[in-house]
Amino acid sequence: MRRITVAVVGYSGDVNEEPVKSLVHLCVELGRELGKRYTVFTGGRNGVMELVAKGVREVGGICVGILPWDGSDANEYNSVVVATGLDFQMRSFIMIKSVDFVISVGGEIGTAIEILAAYANMKPVILLRNTGGWTDRIVNVLIDGLYLDNRKLSPVLQAYTVEEVIRTIERLSGSR
Amino acid sequence: MRRITVAVVGYSGDVNEEPVKSLVHLCVELGRELGKRYTVFTGGRNGVMELVAKGVREVGGICVGILPWDGSDANEYNSVVVATGLDFQMRSFIMIKSVDFVISVGGEIGTAIEILAAYANMKPVILLRNTGGWTDRIVNVLIDGLYLDNRKLSPVLQAYTVEEVIRTIERLSGSR
Amino acid sequence: MRRITVAVVGYSGDVNEEPVKSLVHLCVELGRELGKRYTVFTGGRNGVMELVAKGVREVGGICVGILPWDGSDANEYNSVVVATGLDFQMRSFIMIKSVDFVISVGGEIGTAIEILAAYANMKPVILLRNTGGWTDRIVNVLIDGLYLDNRKLSPVLQAYTVEEVIRTIERLSGSR
Amino acid sequence: MRRITVAVVGYSGDVNEEPVKSLVHLCVELGRELGKRYTVFTGGRNGVMELVAKGVREVGGICVGILPWDGSDANEYNSVVVATGLDFQMRSFIMIKSVDFVISVGGEIGTAIEILAAYANMKPVILLRNTGGWTDRIVNVLIDGLYLDNRKLSPVLQAYTVEEVIRTIERLSGSR
Repeated sequence: MRRITVAVVGYSGDVNEEPVKSLVHLCVELGRELGKRYTVFTGGRNGVMELVAKGVREVGGICVGILPWDGSDANEYNSVVVATGLDFQMRSFIMIKSVDFVISVGGEIGTAIEILAAYANMKPVILLRNTGGWTDRIVNVLIDGLYLDNRKLSPVLQAYTVEEVIRTIERLSGSR
Repeated sequence: MRRITVAVVGYSGDVNEEPVKSLVHLCVELGRELGKRYTVFTGGRNGVMELVAKGVREVGGICVGILPWDGSDANEYNSVVVATGLDFQMRSFIMIKSVDFVISVGGEIGTAIEILAAYANMKPVILLRNTGGWTDRIVNVLIDGLYLDNRKLSPVLQAYTVEEVIRTIERLSGSR
Repeated sequence: MRRITVAVVGYSGDVNEEPVKSLVHLCVELGRELGKRYTVFTGGRNGVMELVAKGVREVGGICVGILPWDGSDANEYNSVVVATGLDFQMRSFIMIKSVDFVISVGGEIGTAIEILAAYANMKPVILLRNTGGWTDRIVNVLIDGLYLDNRKLSPVLQAYTVEEVIRTIERLSGSR
Repeated sequence: MRRITVAVVGYSGDVNEEPVKSLVHLCVELGRELGKRYTVFTGGRNGVMELVAKGVREVGGICVGILPWDGSDANEYNSVVVATGLDFQMRSFIMIKSVDFVISVGGEIGTAIEILAAYANMKPVILLRNTGGWTDRIVNVLIDGLYLDNRKLSPVLQAYTVEEVIRTIERLSGSR
């Protein structure tokens, strides 16, 4: 049976500076819980991507980094690095197409594009709320509190804890 | 001197049905006014793309269609068809990278991604207001009424008439 | 009726230096004859691409340049510049998919990839012989003097003059 | 220290039919020897890709499949499946960019494009000789028996056994 695959998207940036600094514990915990159960994909760089990959590594899971250009800014925790040769945004579409679910944590424009890309590719999104940026901002434009356009392609869900994220994935994938 | 290039993004769909039907006159007029002055790019398919291309054709301008897959759903008004072999969203990035300005008219998730892609690629966006969909919805998440994230990469402007769209382009490009 | 589209691939490099220098007259003539009849695509840069675009411009035709990255190394003769954001080779696939026929003139590894890409996408190739590089070298590996693998997807033809190139296109497209 | 990454390219097709059938033992052995030492990438589908992935799996290695479209024709032995949304050839470039070395086994036009893509991206290629197709055919067009154009970007080497492939990789990577 194929393993469930999950992408985490969110803030890039130095993990010792805000806004990522405040999310260190949460992201590492998220990585650990996802890494125990699923194959995890990220954009492979710094910020939320690095912290999640660190958590996945700690529990011996597999973390795949889908990098822009030649992959030279990959963090040290990726199990596998894919150097797409594409720019920041186009490479995101390859990550999104490769997974069953997308989880967002904070994030600027790149994260916003990834959330919309997930919806357009009919991948359920789970917003980890109260992490700032587009993860919280996107809630203001949801149609019926769930969708990103009138076609209602796929739900955009909300969770407030890592445990709730895991429960949502298990419910949606019928794995419980 | 290189000609200014402008992309128009917006609703796809049958031009005889809503929500496109109500925008027929506006889009053809937009195509005419842009076509007289600039090289126009669209996604090359139906809906807003077709109507704008029709307007460009009427004034003898150049309209470039950047199509997904093999380009087989190109409308009849494109001067040039580029068949990217890419899906709907990834092909949008090629269109956005090729232009100086992006104008949006209504639109579902594909248009939303194009607006965000423009901002991420530092191309000014002009929202043609009161055309519905994401063109009006995105206003609710603008930071300082102008930006799509905290990096303030490029302005997202608003216009209420075709004339105002043209004036905005001329002002930004210093061509007046 | 849709216009026939033709891509020309070949040596990049300074047009005042070999190996392009010796091909100046031939390439401009090729551009003129193609530009009178068809919409012409090239990779939009220097070398053979620039000379062909110059010829197309001289007869008032349309030459579309499909550029890598941000399109900043476009030659001055392109009617339309598409900035793909992709690298040299990946952008070639977009050019190949957009055309009915591919003509090659000399060329290094990029041209070789374009010839193979054309074949893989079932676009007939016309090698303009005695122009050097991969255009002449590829003849050594043709199966039955026509194909690039055992699937025999599409013919790789040979021409020795611009007139013969035009005749081959007209024969294949049934336009005479 | 980053692990060495190696891509294997070659014939697709049913593993119970020629030309793949005769290569079953060789490809599984290649997968085993590579899988013990390196992270292995393939195109993730049937034929040589499937057999190599099987070998990698047998020794508990990591095999990454870089698939076209939605990844639905992935073989069962991939450790990680990346669904690129791109066509057969464009997805090959992502695989090539992600690795240090490329090994080819037989192969039709897709393999030929991958060999040329490796060279264009300055990745050393090792041809596993006497496996047919483009792996043997390409030898006829090598310049100085090593290069695919006059720029001499990267060597195209030849090996006659799996052991020789491994020795070549170790020599080139200075890992012995």
